[in-house]
Amino acid sequence: MTHIQTDTITINGYDCDAYGRLSVPALMNFMQEAANRNALAYGIGIADLATRQVGWMLMRFRLRMHQYPTYGQTIRVVTYPTAVEKYFIYRDFQVLADDGTLLAEATSTWLVFATDTRTMVPMPAFIRSLVVPQGITPQPHLPAKPDFLNQAFVRATEKLVEVGWLSIDMNHHVNNVAYVQWLLESIDHQWLHTREIAELDLVYRAECHLNDRLRAQSAVVSEGEQLHRIEHSETGKEVLLARSRWRGFGLSPLVGILGGGSAPARLG
Amino acid sequence: MTHIQTDTITINGYDCDAYGRLSVPALMNFMQEAANRNALAYGIGIADLATRQVGWMLMRFRLRMHQYPTYGQTIRVVTYPTAVEKYFIYRDFQVLADDGTLLAEATSTWLVFATDTRTMVPMPAFIRSLVVPQGITPQPHLPAKPDFLNQAFVRATEKLVEVGWLSIDMNHHVNNVAYVQWLLESIDHQWLHTREIAELDLVYRAECHLNDRLRAQSAVVSEGEQLHRIEHSETGKEVLLARSRWRGFGLSPLVGILGGGSAPARLG
Repeated sequence: MTHIQTDTITINGYDCDAYGRLSVPALMNFMQEAANRNALAYGIGIADLATRQVGWMLMRFRLRMHQYPTYGQTIRVVTYPTAVEKYFIYRDFQVLADDGTLLAEATSTWLVFATDTRTMVPMPAFIRSLVVPQGITPQPHLPAKPDFLNQAFVRATEKLVEVGWLSIDMNHHVNNVAYVQWLLESIDHQWLHTREIAELDLVYRAECHLNDRLRAQSAVVSEGEQLHRIEHSETGKEVLLARSRWRGFGLSPLVGILGGGSAPARLG
Repeated sequence: MTHIQTDTITINGYDCDAYGRLSVPALMNFMQEAANRNALAYGIGIADLATRQVGWMLMRFRLRMHQYPTYGQTIRVVTYPTAVEKYFIYRDFQVLADDGTLLAEATSTWLVFATDTRTMVPMPAFIRSLVVPQGITPQPHLPAKPDFLNQAFVRATEKLVEVGWLSIDMNHHVNNVAYVQWLLESIDHQWLHTREIAELDLVYRAECHLNDRLRAQSAVVSEGEQLHRIEHSETGKEVLLARSRWRGFGLSPLVGILGGGSAPARLG
């Protein structure tokens, strides 16, 4: 059996930013929820893994925002696995308007870890054997080490964060989306008032836990690009590395400079 | 015309805390959204007020949690105005399970301020003249100065907060729910691991703005009660004062000690 998950969601006020655009963290929550449902359908949900003493860990995530959904709009969030390998499973997402316009899309790479040692293990057979949906057009796999990791990082802004109760999810882990909230809040506000994210490319490096103290840092690379890092305050250990690409409000997506991926298109 | 707003909501994972209970901030977002819809139906929405150079300000809010909704549960959030006076308008909320069980309820007091001077003004005629629904049983009006304001406040825990981009709502104000997030994150984590909020009583005292630095403080009064205050770091100006009442997990609501309000009951 193959499964494609489609969630239909109407955007509430609290999902939106100061300009009535769906916020990136809210969208990522929608995506994660749809992914959880799709995993349940495949019998590879968090509980299915927990009974085998393993768990999911998000390693890579890249989001492309073509057109921001706005307050009151109804969208569909679609997700499915695109491939399973010895160590990794890949999952794509699309966000569609009522008329099928592709508003946003994402691709992601996940690994499985042993809950006792917290280290990566080969994909268990019950996951490895899943059958991906037919007729899909998978996005290219994200590189484990994208080239932005080699770019110079000249810190521009920094925010200190203490991991709080509200960032802990039902799996007693820090929600993957919390990192993006910290990242966004480390960015200069004037920048946020005049630009919107066109692309966000995330490399998850290490877990963090309740009460951990973190530094969320951002560095401006150009008018349309920033680099970000979140690290443990005491050890300096990297938790998240990221690159964001931005455009001014109301401009068309910077498809030309994004490169390498699929252009905005219409789906079913 | 009278209007009762009913929103039907299925609880997502990201609405829940580490124990799969609907989080209080998520519930307050649901309530605020339902209130906005009800206000629109009455022609007293934020935009209706903005054209007359006035705005809504929340002054008092008291939430009682009888039974926590959990992940996957479908609830109804019901709200309506209960009375309008020269300076204040009152609004009640109920949260109902599928079978009509009252899971939570809240009551609130709102005022209108002039957008130029940011000071309270008498309720404009177009609001004053609204007709509240028939057949409702309003909760008693909350006192403007509840007695907990006179209790000694011996600070136990403190968290420093800088008002960030994600706390700003579509009205370019700090979302009322953000204060409650800061309050909750100022509480000792061991406390949060073993108890749940039975009642939360809020007094909103002053606005805050993007980049403001705040101190969120909590003080334990007894095994089942804390006091909270949020103040501006520099001026010490009070932003929010609150009292929370708590119970251990799985215990029945502390109806006896809550006093003064309506007991859990079943509605329609």
